[in-house]
Amino acid sequence: MEIDQSAMQEKAGPLTRARGLLKALLGMAEAEILRVAKSIKKLGKDDPRRIIHSLKVGLALTLLSLIYYLRPLYDGFGTAGIWAVLTVVVVFEFTVGKLIGGTVSKSLNRGFATLVAGALGLGAQQLASLFGDKGDPIVLAILIFLLAAVSTFMRFFPQIKARYDYGVLIFILTFSLIAISGFRVEELLQMARQRLSTIIVGGATCIVVSICICPVWAGETLHNSVAANIEKLASYLEGFGGEYFQSCERSNSDKSFLQGYKNVLNSKSTEESMANLARWEPRHGRFRSRHPWKQYLKIGALTRQCACHIETLNGYINTDIHAPLEFRCKVQEPCTQISAECGKALKSLASAIKTTTVPSSENVNVENSKTAVQDLKIALKAVSLEHDQDLLQILPAATVASILVEIVLCVEKISESVHGLSNLAHFKSVEQLCHQRNRTEEA
Amino acid sequence: MEIDQSAMQEKAGPLTRARGLLKALLGMAEAEILRVAKSIKKLGKDDPRRIIHSLKVGLALTLLSLIYYLRPLYDGFGTAGIWAVLTVVVVFEFTVGKLIGGTVSKSLNRGFATLVAGALGLGAQQLASLFGDKGDPIVLAILIFLLAAVSTFMRFFPQIKARYDYGVLIFILTFSLIAISGFRVEELLQMARQRLSTIIVGGATCIVVSICICPVWAGETLHNSVAANIEKLASYLEGFGGEYFQSCERSNSDKSFLQGYKNVLNSKSTEESMANLARWEPRHGRFRSRHPWKQYLKIGALTRQCACHIETLNGYINTDIHAPLEFRCKVQEPCTQISAECGKALKSLASAIKTTTVPSSENVNVENSKTAVQDLKIALKAVSLEHDQDLLQILPAATVASILVEIVLCVEKISESVHGLSNLAHFKSVEQLCHQRNRTEEA
Repeated sequence: MEIDQSAMQEKAGPLTRARGLLKALLGMAEAEILRVAKSIKKLGKDDPRRIIHSLKVGLALTLLSLIYYLRPLYDGFGTAGIWAVLTVVVVFEFTVGKLIGGTVSKSLNRGFATLVAGALGLGAQQLASLFGDKGDPIVLAILIFLLAAVSTFMRFFPQIKARYDYGVLIFILTFSLIAISGFRVEELLQMARQRLSTIIVGGATCIVVSICICPVWAGETLHNSVAANIEKLASYLEGFGGEYFQSCERSNSDKSFLQGYKNVLNSKSTEESMANLARWEPRHGRFRSRHPWKQYLKIGALTRQCACHIETLNGYINTDIHAPLEFRCKVQEPCTQISAECGKALKSLASAIKTTTVPSSENVNVENSKTAVQDLKIALKAVSLEHDQDLLQILPAATVASILVEIVLCVEKISESVHGLSNLAHFKSVEQLCHQRNRTEEA
Repeated sequence: MEIDQSAMQEKAGPLTRARGLLKALLGMAEAEILRVAKSIKKLGKDDPRRIIHSLKVGLALTLLSLIYYLRPLYDGFGTAGIWAVLTVVVVFEFTVGKLIGGTVSKSLNRGFATLVAGALGLGAQQLASLFGDKGDPIVLAILIFLLAAVSTFMRFFPQIKARYDYGVLIFILTFSLIAISGFRVEELLQMARQRLSTIIVGGATCIVVSICICPVWAGETLHNSVAANIEKLASYLEGFGGEYFQSCERSNSDKSFLQGYKNVLNSKSTEESMANLARWEPRHGRFRSRHPWKQYLKIGALTRQCACHIETLNGYINTDIHAPLEFRCKVQEPCTQISAECGKALKSLASAIKTTTVPSSENVNVENSKTAVQDLKIALKAVSLEHDQDLLQILPAATVASILVEIVLCVEKISESVHGLSNLAHFKSVEQLCHQRNRTEEA
């Protein structure tokens, strides 16, 4: 029997092995597909606007292709119709184009740059034609070199880069195209007219699609992200006291609030590009057309400074060398209170920004935290170094206290800058809102 | 006489005023021109590569236009020659394109994406044609919608975004163009061949110009900027001791070293995009083709953490409340030494990176700073709070000392990560270099 079995095993061997291999392969493939599907799901869940943006790009292109299929329009556009497609794809660049400011600024930039470059290109051709058949290409080559080099250099100016970067790019492109192609094609004016009209169709499609279907405004995104950043710091500070002083009885609860501030540290470039795009957007929702977008950058800079202090503070959370119990008892209450009140103040500032109301309740918290700072100072004054504790032992806790005092100053500055925003943007006070609500209820 | 004069003044009035106005206007125009000229000069001086880059773009376009003017080539390319221009202008995008990695990655991305999209576009046309004249546009519209939406969504994946973002963009573009235009133009294959060949010409022009004329490598830029950032922190720390403790006798000397660290705080996104581009670059200069670019990101993250501590430290430099003289005298020496030794250690690490040699001399400095930390601890242990000084008064100085201790830890980590880089990238030791030099001298 034993021999039989082993013989059968041997016979079945290659087949079973092949089957096993196939099974393993299928399993791997399944796992891989599941992994990809999961990461797709996560990506869409993290920011549903991504899916919407993808669908919007698809829709804009489909609309254009339908336009292109209709004969009457085709006869008007000619093969220049591809320029409409080009416009849609490039204008809808997602890093910028998912924001309406990006779409508008790119469309306008593209339109004007094409006009100016077209005119200059024609001029260059006329100029070059004066030099006869032999001089013509040389003069054109020199002109192209000069204009391309100068415009490229212009793009390094911060002011030009921030607002007209894309326009200058299109300018170089169109100018070179017209100057070069003009050497062959005679109907340049006709071509320019065509190109411009197709670009208008493409740009208009983009603007219509991006405004009509789930609009994403750069201004609103900036507004929300500044508020969200302040909130992240608030969560940290609200939780800090408990985390630092009760570190012996550490629970395994969710510690994600301790990590949120790290994203704030690297928010500068995003905020700046957002503020630049927001200027191109028309009035929308709660934002007037001349909303003080620059003020958000000030708030952002102060928020980052505060996040920096928190980064240093965070270094002390995990140190095992804790101060003697006596000293900790003395500073625990004022420190916990400072950090909690700062957190509350930031939270109410964030919610004031979110609801575009005049911040008010944060004043109490700032005052409370200042009182706590005074308490802390009194407690520190009373510390003596006699009962077997020396300065070295109490230094970490004392440093934490000192950084917390710095953070209070920072929170005060943030509060001031949010008040500045509230003034500039004419936020409504809570009373006004109540009044309004009462009125609507009466009506 | 008096009446005469006033009459003359009255007569001359309008003329003089006009002249004055003209003069003022001319003066303003002159001032404006001077201002612009100055800012141009400054821009070029800050980074001469900008001027070179502008000239390179001009040159590449001129070269292309010359190619375009030669009849034989023209007959081969057709009007698709404009695609070569498009390639040059878009590929040479300065934010990325001034770096060789950017040019190479964009050229390759563009080439492959065009190939794949062309094949798929043709396939889509064949598929659509099966559905008859009426079904054709509908099927194509659906296909365009699907592919555009899916590809746009794919661009949100971090891995794809980092390396193939541009390729996916070109894929959408080319696919839509072929699927749409194919409805009209019959000679699609011919067109595709033309387009690909012109893109190759355009891309090759870009690569040749950017490699042959003053090449700017992304990898080298990353390498240098990481070293420069470490150096900025080093300058701060070397100067900090003198600045903080001798603040009574402040000199009006150059304080710019106190500001340098602020740029380090926002370096993350630049470094990351640089590291992504560096992977596309072939071996060049001192860098092998598989240089450990990721390690630079680790060093960069630690550098930013250190910069954060310095930001908090910097808050204490300008406070007027200084600790009592007695306490300051006790901590001044160890603190000054810690900060100076940390500065020296960072400086030698930066120069090790710059010269791609194994860092060695920084060990001594790190050890010295650790000894200074011990001295500081002994000094702190010995502090008593009796002679009319309380903890509150000495707290700012004590906090500075405490943050300096944190900085020492940070510098140690930076040192470790630089050693890691030196191992991974096979930096040469100083002895090896001496040996080599001796050999070449002997030869």
